[in-house]
Amino acid sequence: MKPQRFALTPGEPAGIGPDLCLLLAAQPQPYPLIAITSCDLLTERAAQLGVAVSLLPVTPDAWPDLPAPAGSLYVWDTPTQTPVKAGQLDKANGAFVLETLTRAGRGCMDGHFAGMITAPVHKGVINDSGIAFSGHTEFLAELTHTEQVVMMLATGDLRVALVTTHLPLRDVADAITVERLERVTRILHADLAGKFGIARPRILVCGLNPHAGESGHLGREEIDIIEPTLERLRSEGMDLRGPLPADTLFTPKYLEHCDAVLAMYHDQGLPVLKYKGFGAAVNITLGLPIIRTSVDHGTALDLAGTGKIDTGSLRVALETAYQMAETHS
Amino acid sequence: MKPQRFALTPGEPAGIGPDLCLLLAAQPQPYPLIAITSCDLLTERAAQLGVAVSLLPVTPDAWPDLPAPAGSLYVWDTPTQTPVKAGQLDKANGAFVLETLTRAGRGCMDGHFAGMITAPVHKGVINDSGIAFSGHTEFLAELTHTEQVVMMLATGDLRVALVTTHLPLRDVADAITVERLERVTRILHADLAGKFGIARPRILVCGLNPHAGESGHLGREEIDIIEPTLERLRSEGMDLRGPLPADTLFTPKYLEHCDAVLAMYHDQGLPVLKYKGFGAAVNITLGLPIIRTSVDHGTALDLAGTGKIDTGSLRVALETAYQMAETHS
Repeated sequence: MKPQRFALTPGEPAGIGPDLCLLLAAQPQPYPLIAITSCDLLTERAAQLGVAVSLLPVTPDAWPDLPAPAGSLYVWDTPTQTPVKAGQLDKANGAFVLETLTRAGRGCMDGHFAGMITAPVHKGVINDSGIAFSGHTEFLAELTHTEQVVMMLATGDLRVALVTTHLPLRDVADAITVERLERVTRILHADLAGKFGIARPRILVCGLNPHAGESGHLGREEIDIIEPTLERLRSEGMDLRGPLPADTLFTPKYLEHCDAVLAMYHDQGLPVLKYKGFGAAVNITLGLPIIRTSVDHGTALDLAGTGKIDTGSLRVALETAYQMAETHS
Repeated sequence: MKPQRFALTPGEPAGIGPDLCLLLAAQPQPYPLIAITSCDLLTERAAQLGVAVSLLPVTPDAWPDLPAPAGSLYVWDTPTQTPVKAGQLDKANGAFVLETLTRAGRGCMDGHFAGMITAPVHKGVINDSGIAFSGHTEFLAELTHTEQVVMMLATGDLRVALVTTHLPLRDVADAITVERLERVTRILHADLAGKFGIARPRILVCGLNPHAGESGHLGREEIDIIEPTLERLRSEGMDLRGPLPADTLFTPKYLEHCDAVLAMYHDQGLPVLKYKGFGAAVNITLGLPIIRTSVDHGTALDLAGTGKIDTGSLRVALETAYQMAETHS
């Protein structure tokens, strides 16, 4: 069965998310794609941008079966609390942003959507509105009752997943535990198979320390934690190579024979990925019971309403979600 | 005045260093280049490789004025302690390796050489020979009575210098002190000007934490240490931008307007550099009173004597040393 339809959340209404949705509508999508946001917001932003897009309101009791024609956009109208000015954050709309995410996430859980694609939110303004919020990923983990999720970025044929994500650097070493490494590796392995259709995923694992610890001379985490964990998972049949020095792993000799890289922390894995693919990278949340992809950039408040933006990352996020849903279905 | 001549140390005799020197000799160099090693070793390795190279012995009392012709190589004969078998480490030759480095380093200090280019050594076998040795850089720092040196790698138009180098990851945060950051930044700035001829070096500085600490939410080192240090140095006229998130810094928007990136630690800066330039990157030691460049790869013991090696990194190391000497002279 082919996937039916997808949800797109424009995120922060004062940012470039609404603009991205409108610019995207110039070309048709292969599946019905439903923007979950305010029709009024889109109408005003389209006028500001000077683009003509027909908004086609839809609701859960009458989903469309066919993709919207070029120049039009399906919208599940979700009103903002207060009118939006491009580029100006307003904490009054914090609850609105979360309502769009809730509609998309629940819709995925309930089978209305085959997956959801998210444009950037602004964490600060949601917290300022009085709602504790640490990010899309954590919000969706809670909504779907998921204990552990894994952040993976991809561009072209390079995929990089992270064992730890948004931690101060001084806390990283203690966060690399046998339990966490094992859970993350299992999720990565299972989702490469189940959501990306890779029968026998080949994973390259970075060491934690420079030169992967150089046999213990530059740190013992490789010997005490990483190697024994990988060895145990290998004995279950997983194809795991490493721990390898991060500064030699990202070279053709290794990358040509791998489906994903598992980096131990944020700035070990993401600089290479964004160097390779900035503007065309996708952020994928693994471990969720739903499919969720995201752009790899921020709200770009200063560019909202200007039209000087690139839809490249959103297109990659959409294509990736479609492919994952096709694999999964 | 043009620089006169350069020293080339092949490093570990059982590794690919001798092979690199011999393969390099096929083309002429723009300056007299003097390999400091054993003539017997080179003769045997040339036979093993099946290459014809005329060895031209030279000594400090009669340096050559012209480059060696294609197919020949100047050699300052420095005997090994024991015969060398390609691929087989022998601790009996540990002292030999250090003697070649001492001749090159002292020769630079005394004005015999305009700079030295090093092929890889094997730290383990030198230590096994009973001589404490933690690397070329530290050895040359001691030989030249230099307190602080800075490791910088370069490939094409990208240069990445490091505030900390070979430390376990859990020790990195504490090693980022005001004093160290200031010393390293001063050396980088001074050498970009003095050895690379960049009148007003533009330096991009990474944060320590992911997202450069996100205003203190992901670590306070940016606020407490990095920002005030950069601000003070800026007040002296240095063009320093940052601290920036490492995963957005390595994108064209920033890199197009910079002469060097200063990364806080090894695996934050080097994966991108080696991804961009593996096989054609050069390692440069800044802060020394002499010019020293190096290949960016290891001894590759398994490839010694096979001829299946790439001289790309050595060529870049040579060209970089020549350019630095031309700038400096």
